[in-house]
Amino acid sequence: MMEKPTGGEAAAGFTHFDAEGRAVMVDVSDKDITERTATARGSVFMRPETLALIMSGGLKKGDVLSVARLAGIMGAKRTPDLIPLCHPLALTSVKVDLTCDPERNAVDITSTCKLKGRTGVEMEALTAVSVAALTVYDMCKAVDRGMTIGDVSLLHKAGGKSGDYGTAP
Amino acid sequence: MMEKPTGGEAAAGFTHFDAEGRAVMVDVSDKDITERTATARGSVFMRPETLALIMSGGLKKGDVLSVARLAGIMGAKRTPDLIPLCHPLALTSVKVDLTCDPERNAVDITSTCKLKGRTGVEMEALTAVSVAALTVYDMCKAVDRGMTIGDVSLLHKAGGKSGDYGTAP
Amino acid sequence: MMEKPTGGEAAAGFTHFDAEGRAVMVDVSDKDITERTATARGSVFMRPETLALIMSGGLKKGDVLSVARLAGIMGAKRTPDLIPLCHPLALTSVKVDLTCDPERNAVDITSTCKLKGRTGVEMEALTAVSVAALTVYDMCKAVDRGMTIGDVSLLHKAGGKSGDYGTAP
Amino acid sequence: MMEKPTGGEAAAGFTHFDAEGRAVMVDVSDKDITERTATARGSVFMRPETLALIMSGGLKKGDVLSVARLAGIMGAKRTPDLIPLCHPLALTSVKVDLTCDPERNAVDITSTCKLKGRTGVEMEALTAVSVAALTVYDMCKAVDRGMTIGDVSLLHKAGGKSGDYGTAP
Amino acid sequence: MMEKPTGGEAAAGFTHFDAEGRAVMVDVSDKDITERTATARGSVFMRPETLALIMSGGLKKGDVLSVARLAGIMGAKRTPDLIPLCHPLALTSVKVDLTCDPERNAVDITSTCKLKGRTGVEMEALTAVSVAALTVYDMCKAVDRGMTIGDVSLLHKAGGKSGDYGTAP
Amino acid sequence: MMEKPTGGEAAAGFTHFDAEGRAVMVDVSDKDITERTATARGSVFMRPETLALIMSGGLKKGDVLSVARLAGIMGAKRTPDLIPLCHPLALTSVKVDLTCDPERNAVDITSTCKLKGRTGVEMEALTAVSVAALTVYDMCKAVDRGMTIGDVSLLHKAGGKSGDYGTAP
Repeated sequence: MMEKPTGGEAAAGFTHFDAEGRAVMVDVSDKDITERTATARGSVFMRPETLALIMSGGLKKGDVLSVARLAGIMGAKRTPDLIPLCHPLALTSVKVDLTCDPERNAVDITSTCKLKGRTGVEMEALTAVSVAALTVYDMCKAVDRGMTIGDVSLLHKAGGKSGDYGTAP
Repeated sequence: MMEKPTGGEAAAGFTHFDAEGRAVMVDVSDKDITERTATARGSVFMRPETLALIMSGGLKKGDVLSVARLAGIMGAKRTPDLIPLCHPLALTSVKVDLTCDPERNAVDITSTCKLKGRTGVEMEALTAVSVAALTVYDMCKAVDRGMTIGDVSLLHKAGGKSGDYGTAP
Repeated sequence: MMEKPTGGEAAAGFTHFDAEGRAVMVDVSDKDITERTATARGSVFMRPETLALIMSGGLKKGDVLSVARLAGIMGAKRTPDLIPLCHPLALTSVKVDLTCDPERNAVDITSTCKLKGRTGVEMEALTAVSVAALTVYDMCKAVDRGMTIGDVSLLHKAGGKSGDYGTAP
Repeated sequence: MMEKPTGGEAAAGFTHFDAEGRAVMVDVSDKDITERTATARGSVFMRPETLALIMSGGLKKGDVLSVARLAGIMGAKRTPDLIPLCHPLALTSVKVDLTCDPERNAVDITSTCKLKGRTGVEMEALTAVSVAALTVYDMCKAVDRGMTIGDVSLLHKAGGKSGDYGTAP
Repeated sequence: MMEKPTGGEAAAGFTHFDAEGRAVMVDVSDKDITERTATARGSVFMRPETLALIMSGGLKKGDVLSVARLAGIMGAKRTPDLIPLCHPLALTSVKVDLTCDPERNAVDITSTCKLKGRTGVEMEALTAVSVAALTVYDMCKAVDRGMTIGDVSLLHKAGGKSGDYGTAP
Repeated sequence: MMEKPTGGEAAAGFTHFDAEGRAVMVDVSDKDITERTATARGSVFMRPETLALIMSGGLKKGDVLSVARLAGIMGAKRTPDLIPLCHPLALTSVKVDLTCDPERNAVDITSTCKLKGRTGVEMEALTAVSVAALTVYDMCKAVDRGMTIGDVSLLHKAGGKSGDYGTAP
């Protein structure tokens, strides 16, 4: 093997590298099957007129929001295809919600994923939020190319050895 | 058809809805084949120690950054699978760059996509940035679950009837 | 949230909507792992000459039928990619059979899928039948564009809380 | 090669077999780039109460129909992944429409696909209809497992050497 | 059904054919859940100058090897999409290693996959090796089109009723 | 950017790295659209009894060979999903042939891919061969785990600026 070990320090904290600093999918064979849940959130910030357009449609058929919700749900299922070192998982639940906040000129997105399995589902929840946000951008870009996706972060996770994180929504 | 037209106003600005407010993939059959480029950016904000860990690895082998770069490139190719109303495209170029900014405790990501085709490639560039950002999160989450993905936005686009947007990088 | 609850009545019977009428992937986290099976069927109706062509090939190498059988098996595995609210599943068995019925000028397709898991596999069996039927159409369309796919339905399911349906084949 | 030629007759009419009766993807390298369109249709037949449930939801938010429409659009893009001998295509337009017909207790689906390319898009239109129909089944199966998908057929195609088929919708 | 049974002998040894000689996905519903591991290997043979180029890059950033490693890991996850009769699996571990052997002018690849499940993971390990090898070819083909991929074989498997094979690495 | 340029020499010959040694998808925007073809080959070596089993089946229905041929054709279409830096392509033709050679105890595979486009199709032909070979392994592994895939190489390519390679088959 041509690569030199990086020494303990550099790769120490990262579970996705082996002792020689090479990228690996973490071996979860010996982890317990427990209920895992994770909730992530994110926002799409836009001009007030763009949000008004979504909301006027939303009140009638909610199409931008419902297309984005569906894209987010389907995106969660594609996580192991997208994120190189994620395990393929049999998710038992995916929820994606989108709401409009006129005060912040934002569409706010949350996603909660669940699994009875050996590894956490944070990446699935974060991927669902990101794909939903990208879909909002896609559907509104003809009227507003200056939208920004931000605040994409983990709100809460539960289950597994590393324990809970954040506050349950 | 059970759905009522929304009237002109609601759906007017959105190209992804037809006259009756139903989601459609825009018909680009009659658009010209021109060179299209788009550049998007985004950032992953983290604790200083997390960035230091990436950079110490990065100086030697850059693994977090190079795994994320590859994931971004591959993610751009999956855009039509992820974003419901995006056209399948034969991208001619995808570039993804990641740099560390210790002053802002951020990994900054940019992606430029190109196509000789009938529709723009903004979504491909934004998807590349988002997938690269999610991959950074995945690889560092064991040491820092509080990272945030933000500032995901379009920097520049060129080509096509709607003309240029932003400043070429 | 911009969408109004629909009230109990409208969404009551549908498990794929939450109390506010939004599309969801059903949460199966608390369902038991049991053996689930489902059998679906469908037919491709065609001109007698087209069926004769399939059968004459079929007697020798059965290529139209064997290509369609394989496409159906592979299609069952793609179900969660295609049907937005289906769970990703680790199918333990997929069978697809195609037979020719000269009296009805039909290729008849059945598929049986199995899983030890938390949710039923009707959609996998129906998707296998549909993809096999589409493949028959594709392979024969140069000689007969008037073929029709019909009678796609669930013959039998077993396992899970909702109990059995139909008659085991 | 272990397989015997089937003689001219058996494989003659089928373009998806070579002279020796082996499955092939048709070589379209020398076909002209022309505008290709295809329209397909299909129906999901159900109990009157099930249709009433869709329609009452439909009048408010149309969720079953709009989820199925989106699944059909996305399904059209997956056609080359599903149908073994279909060419990968850069579709320029996909439309899917769903309407309720209380007299026939049916949800009727039509899809029109377009391409400027070297091969027809019948399979994309038929796949869009089939995936939309399967999605209707999935969303309503908790209240009605006896639904049937039928009448899936090509209404019209235009463009390419084989000329037009059927009547433009 | 148009196909004749082949008699016991022909299909006897193959588990992927039923009694009538038709391709099937083996039914593993009744197999026990045990820990399964498989290790496969393979090599890419090339001109000495090509290997030198990889190694000089490798010593600094190892890019050819690290891109190929990642591609191999992701490829293992796509196995059920590629190999028609493979079951979809929730792999718990995928490892891919690449080393340069200047004496044989070869890049040597090994992959070990793990699963707690009902079926073996040989195909996942072999697919990981093959995709990593193809990626090495892709990245070096501009300087050496004469490379050959060879010696792709199973080194070891453990778990399941058929017992162990080969020697654990 | 945290990575140091490698200097000209190291990355010079490789088109998949930029001046700073980072992996890139080659920009083909300015390449001409020409007819590109590529032919690759490979072999699966096995015990004589295994080959005899394939051939006895092959004489009747050729199932191992025809399943592998189909898998190879479908695999060619998945190339950009598998090989990180490959461009998405609209292949115009994919052919895969498998023959049995009892003297070498081998199944020999060749694949020819075609495209009118801006980049070569070697990787598509090599991927088709590899996926077909893996499928042969999968279908025969119950009787012979010692099979080896080898001699996977490019026989011929034509079209594009880099000119022809090898001899047309």
